[in-house]
Amino acid sequence: MRRALPPLRALRGLARALCGGDSALSALPSFGFLFDIDGVLVRGKTPIPAARTAFQKLVNSQGQFLVPVVFVTNAGNCLRQRKADQLSDLLGVPISQDQVMMSHSPLRMFKHYHEKCVLVSGQGPLLDIAQDLGFCQPVTVEALREQHPLLDAVDHDRTPSVLSPSAVELPKIEAVVLFGEPVRWETSLQLIIDVLLTSGYPGNPYHHENYPHIPVLACNMDLMWVAEAQSPRFGHGTFMVCLENIYKKITGRELKYEALVGKPSRVTYQYAEQLLRAQAGHRHWHQPIHTLYAVGDNLMTDVYGANLYNRFLEQSSGRGSKPRVQAKVSAGRGSAALAQEDDRDPSLESQLAAAGAAHCRSVLVCTGVYDPHAAVPGGAQGGRAHSVFHGHRDFSFDPGLVQPDHIVPDVDAAVDLVFQLENFAPS
Amino acid sequence: MRRALPPLRALRGLARALCGGDSALSALPSFGFLFDIDGVLVRGKTPIPAARTAFQKLVNSQGQFLVPVVFVTNAGNCLRQRKADQLSDLLGVPISQDQVMMSHSPLRMFKHYHEKCVLVSGQGPLLDIAQDLGFCQPVTVEALREQHPLLDAVDHDRTPSVLSPSAVELPKIEAVVLFGEPVRWETSLQLIIDVLLTSGYPGNPYHHENYPHIPVLACNMDLMWVAEAQSPRFGHGTFMVCLENIYKKITGRELKYEALVGKPSRVTYQYAEQLLRAQAGHRHWHQPIHTLYAVGDNLMTDVYGANLYNRFLEQSSGRGSKPRVQAKVSAGRGSAALAQEDDRDPSLESQLAAAGAAHCRSVLVCTGVYDPHAAVPGGAQGGRAHSVFHGHRDFSFDPGLVQPDHIVPDVDAAVDLVFQLENFAPS
Repeated sequence: MRRALPPLRALRGLARALCGGDSALSALPSFGFLFDIDGVLVRGKTPIPAARTAFQKLVNSQGQFLVPVVFVTNAGNCLRQRKADQLSDLLGVPISQDQVMMSHSPLRMFKHYHEKCVLVSGQGPLLDIAQDLGFCQPVTVEALREQHPLLDAVDHDRTPSVLSPSAVELPKIEAVVLFGEPVRWETSLQLIIDVLLTSGYPGNPYHHENYPHIPVLACNMDLMWVAEAQSPRFGHGTFMVCLENIYKKITGRELKYEALVGKPSRVTYQYAEQLLRAQAGHRHWHQPIHTLYAVGDNLMTDVYGANLYNRFLEQSSGRGSKPRVQAKVSAGRGSAALAQEDDRDPSLESQLAAAGAAHCRSVLVCTGVYDPHAAVPGGAQGGRAHSVFHGHRDFSFDPGLVQPDHIVPDVDAAVDLVFQLENFAPS
Repeated sequence: MRRALPPLRALRGLARALCGGDSALSALPSFGFLFDIDGVLVRGKTPIPAARTAFQKLVNSQGQFLVPVVFVTNAGNCLRQRKADQLSDLLGVPISQDQVMMSHSPLRMFKHYHEKCVLVSGQGPLLDIAQDLGFCQPVTVEALREQHPLLDAVDHDRTPSVLSPSAVELPKIEAVVLFGEPVRWETSLQLIIDVLLTSGYPGNPYHHENYPHIPVLACNMDLMWVAEAQSPRFGHGTFMVCLENIYKKITGRELKYEALVGKPSRVTYQYAEQLLRAQAGHRHWHQPIHTLYAVGDNLMTDVYGANLYNRFLEQSSGRGSKPRVQAKVSAGRGSAALAQEDDRDPSLESQLAAAGAAHCRSVLVCTGVYDPHAAVPGGAQGGRAHSVFHGHRDFSFDPGLVQPDHIVPDVDAAVDLVFQLENFAPS
C-alpha cells in the first residue's frame, strides 16, 4: 500500500503549491493523537487556555481534523456523546462521539458479562452507560439499598425510601462493575462488601468461605486527578484503595479484579488505536498510522500506559501472530485474574484487530497532576517520588514505564513538538 | 476500710431479715457492671428483650440501682444526656448521664488540646460534643469545606454553599479529632488528608515533608457493630481503615495516632471505674468495689478491653505506685505515639485516681457481633477466626485477650451469672 503512494514530501510540496496547504490532502498523516482531557484540556470545569490554541492547529478552515485525534479519558460518569459535546464547546471545533473513549469503553467487548445481573457503582447516568455498553441487567447500589433497607446503616439519620410491596425481588448479583467513584462512599463500600461476602445475595449472612468472590470489573484506576484545587483530588483509584483494604481487613484475603480497564491498561490503547484507524479510513487517508502520540498529565496513567503499549507494539511488531489482549495488561497480584479473564473470554481477542502502529510515544504536560518541581518522575504526584508508587496495586512499578518520551509545558507545545518531529506542515 | 465492716454474708442475712431484702442496704455490692449497649441492649433501634428483664433485677422497687452500673459505649454521635434518656426509655428504669460513658468521654482529660483549633470528624451534634468535652475551637469538616469550596470534588453535582465575603478565615488546624464515622466519607477523607498534608492549611499545596503530621486523636476503633441487618455493619474502625490506607498510598508513610480512646483502650476502663466508684460513694456504699464485670458482644472491643484492663489491675494491684495511664493502651505501631502523648500530657495521670478494683471480668453475650457458630474466638466476627484480626492496626493480636471469662446467651443471663458468682441476693 505504502509503495503505491508518491513520497510524502513530494505530496506535501504539491499540495502546498496547489492550495496553500489548506486542505486535508496537504499532508497525509502517518501519526495520530491520543489526548487525555483532565489536566490537559481542562481543570475541573475550567478550560486550560493552551487547548483552544492547540486545536486551531489541528483542524482546517472547514473544522476538519488534519490528523486523526482520539480523546482517551479515564472519566466514566457520562456517555461518549455528552463528553463529545462538552469538548466541542470547550475547544471550538466539532468533536464526534467516535473520537471519544471513556474508561469504560472497552467493557463493550466483555460480552461474557453482558447477560448477567451486575451491580454497577459510580455516579452519573449509570444505567444508561451500562446499557449502552451492552449490559442487560445492571442494578445500581441505590436500587440494592432500597431492596435491602437494613444494610446501609452508617448515616444514622438516613433511612432508605420504603420498599413498595410490589417491588420485585432482585436476582442474584453475578458480578460487580466499578465504573467510577460514587458519592456517599460508605453506602457503596458497604453494599459492595455485602455482595462479595454473600456471593451476590446481600440479604444473607456473611460467609467468608465465599472465596474467590464473584467477579469484580473496574474502570479507571487513577488515584488522583486535578480539578481547580491546588493539589490533586481523589479519583476512583482512591475509592478502590478503600474497597481493597476493607475487604482485606474483614476477610484477611485480597480483593481480586477480573479486569481493570481504562488507562494504563493495554486493552484501552488497543481500542483507541482502532478508533484512530477507523477515523483515518473514514477520511480516506491510506497512509498507515505509524506512531501514536499520547498526550497526558499523569505519570501513572498516561505515561505508564503509553509506554506499556509502546513495549507491546515493539515486541509484537513483525511477529505477525495476534497478541493476547488482556493477559499482560497488569503486572502484580492482579495479572493472574486478568489472564483468567482473558482465557475465559476469547471473544475479546477476536474483537480487536492486530495492532498496526509501530510506536506509542508519551508526551507529558505540566498543566495537571504532574509536578515538575517534584523529584525525578517515579510515579509520585509530589515529593518522595522515588519511594511512593501512585499506580494501582496490580500494576507493578517499573521506573522505565514512568519516564515520558517528552515533557512540554502544555498541550499547545505538545502539538508543535509532534508536528516538528513528524515534519508535518499543514499550512 | 474493709476490716471496719461486718462480714458481707452476715450483713446480707441481716438486711434480708429486716426488710425482705427490698433495700439498697439489703446487700452492699463489692462489684459493679460495665454494660456495652449495641448488641447487648439494642440492635440498631430495636430493643433486645432480655435487657428489660435484666434491669428489673438490678433496681429496687424505687427504681434505685442495687449495684453500681455504668454504660460504656463506643458510640460517639450524641451527648451523654441523650444516651441516658434513650436508655431510660429502653430499659424502663431511670438512668442518669453520670452512668453513661461515650467513646469520646476520656478526651475531657486531654486538656493539652482543648485550647487548640481542632478539626472534628463524625456525625451528630459534633460542636456540642466537642465543646462539652472542653474543646474551645472545634471546626467541622463541613465548615472547612465551605471555607475551601474547591477541595471536595468527588460529587460532581454538589458544590459547597457559596462563602459569604464576610466569612472569617479559619485559623490553622492544629489537630484532628475523629469522633466517629461521618456521612459522605469521601468528603471527610479528602479534607482530613488535605489538612494532614498541608500541616493544617488545607488551601495550600501538599508537602510530603510534613511528617510526622499534625496530631490525630481517634475515638472508637470498632471495625463493625450490629444493627438490625443479619451481618455486622461498618463502624468507625472501617472509616479509619480507609483513612490509614489512603494516607499510606499517597505518602508512603504510616498515619499515626496521638491517642486512641474508647474501648478497648485502658484509659476508657480507668475512667469507667472512676464513674462506678463515684456512684457507689453517692449511694454511701462503703464496701470497696473489688470486681468489675464488663458485659459486651464484641471480642475485639469488650472482651479484649476488659481482659487488657484486668491484666493491668492484676499487675498494678499492691504495687502502690500510680500506673501510667496511656502508654500501654496500645500495642503495635501506635504505642509509641501514645507513649509520647502520655509524656507530653502528664495532667492525664493526675486526673485519674489509682485503680481500686482487683479484677475486671469479661462476659460475652451472643446477641450481637459475636457469632457463637464461628471458630474458637480469635478476634474475627465470623469464620476464619484464627487468621483474621478485626482489632485496630495499633492493637496487637493476643489470643489471651480475646478469650472471654464467661459466655452467656444474653444480658439477662449475664446478670444472673454475676449475682451467682458474687453470691449476691437482692431479694
